[in-house]
Amino acid sequence: MNKQELVIEIFKKRSFLSIGLDTDLAKIPQHLLKLEDPIFEFNKAIIDATQEYCVAYKPNIAFYEALGSKGWDSLQKTVDYIPDNIFTIADAKRGDIGNTSKMYAKTFFETYNFDSITINPYMGIDSVTPFLEFKNKWAIILALTSNIGSEDFQHHTEDGEKLYEKVIRKSFEWGTDQNIMFVTGATHPEELKEIRALAPQSFFLVPGVGAQGGDLHAVVKNARNEEIGLLINSSRAIIYASNQEDFALAAGLEAKAVQAQMLRYF
Amino acid sequence: MNKQELVIEIFKKRSFLSIGLDTDLAKIPQHLLKLEDPIFEFNKAIIDATQEYCVAYKPNIAFYEALGSKGWDSLQKTVDYIPDNIFTIADAKRGDIGNTSKMYAKTFFETYNFDSITINPYMGIDSVTPFLEFKNKWAIILALTSNIGSEDFQHHTEDGEKLYEKVIRKSFEWGTDQNIMFVTGATHPEELKEIRALAPQSFFLVPGVGAQGGDLHAVVKNARNEEIGLLINSSRAIIYASNQEDFALAAGLEAKAVQAQMLRYF
Repeated sequence: MNKQELVIEIFKKRSFLSIGLDTDLAKIPQHLLKLEDPIFEFNKAIIDATQEYCVAYKPNIAFYEALGSKGWDSLQKTVDYIPDNIFTIADAKRGDIGNTSKMYAKTFFETYNFDSITINPYMGIDSVTPFLEFKNKWAIILALTSNIGSEDFQHHTEDGEKLYEKVIRKSFEWGTDQNIMFVTGATHPEELKEIRALAPQSFFLVPGVGAQGGDLHAVVKNARNEEIGLLINSSRAIIYASNQEDFALAAGLEAKAVQAQMLRYF
Repeated sequence: MNKQELVIEIFKKRSFLSIGLDTDLAKIPQHLLKLEDPIFEFNKAIIDATQEYCVAYKPNIAFYEALGSKGWDSLQKTVDYIPDNIFTIADAKRGDIGNTSKMYAKTFFETYNFDSITINPYMGIDSVTPFLEFKNKWAIILALTSNIGSEDFQHHTEDGEKLYEKVIRKSFEWGTDQNIMFVTGATHPEELKEIRALAPQSFFLVPGVGAQGGDLHAVVKNARNEEIGLLINSSRAIIYASNQEDFALAAGLEAKAVQAQMLRYF
């Protein structure tokens, strides 16, 4: 999916919600466990119930990988099931030397046909650029993350430039707002304003609204641009809204409620 | 495997060689492709031919993941086949928010029973500490990597402290030389001396000897400690020494040659 198509979907649905599919056998409703592929059945029901209210799905690859080869089959079926007009994000946080990053890119862009993958920039240029060689595919580079550990290294400052700011600046030497997005955590609303100034045209994937405590309005106020330019992700607060037989209904209502909060920004 | 056991193996074998299993269908000998699991058959033959000369195997997870669920089955069989006295490294470069890192730790330490996993520290404390909670398991944290992109961010300097130096310093707030190692590239022999001063008792996993051009003697001179404290990794130069039917024999000879170079350091 290219940028224009994504923006059109956002304005058509009046939503910039991404739903994180952190699907965990220990958390999904018990009655699904007797089915052959509980992970896929859960995702399928969640997708059916929420697709009207979101523009992206973000499977967290760790949760699939933890199940061994079966988990990868569930992931494949899930990505295949997501409608074509919805942006897909492999939340994998990959990044390695050039020949290895190329392998990861092939895996997520070709084998699994994701639109995008999250990338850890620590290893620099050759860990990122192999992901930029695929048409209409995206590298979503970690800049300032939402977790407590984001304080440890991402604020390391040289000549007034923080590490996450350098990541953004260097990224524009490698790609553009047409193939790179940035992860910017909702837990840092003040910094989001400065990050927007550094990357005025770029999309930001914003985790941390919901379970991690970030505030939607503060994020939008500080970081939206004319195309909205945001994918606000919520995972646990939506997909685990209920752990009973009504889980899909509850997830749909929760997604609808978030989307309703987004209406005012259009 | 704990540190003492690893050191004993190193002195017993008079080797600190790690062999990278970057097993690629496009590079392994053609005649293997007609077998049911060519990746595992290749690894099995390589392990049989080289285990006498090395103390660690390092499967590069990207190469297995690229094959979908089948690749993970080949990986599982490979790890199960590696003898218990040989240290296993999942070269996965993972790292995410706490609950997700915990998932990755379970995957590689429990589902696949690796001794260690490589970790990308960009996201800080909660991306690393979940890997430190497993007995006799190791987090191998990226400090200064061997690739060209290591120049981009790892040298970012605040108050005279480079990012990779800060990674090492902070790591000792989270763990010890008994559960943390560091990745330090062979392509930076001068910096290795300074890194050894920061982490005198720690093991370093040193990629970049061989295909990437690093020099064994320079690395050992600058970075060995009394327990050797090094795992020197070579991947392509050993496993692809021949792409004919004699591939395992050729790999064994190449591993033996590297181990012979190591004898002088004991």
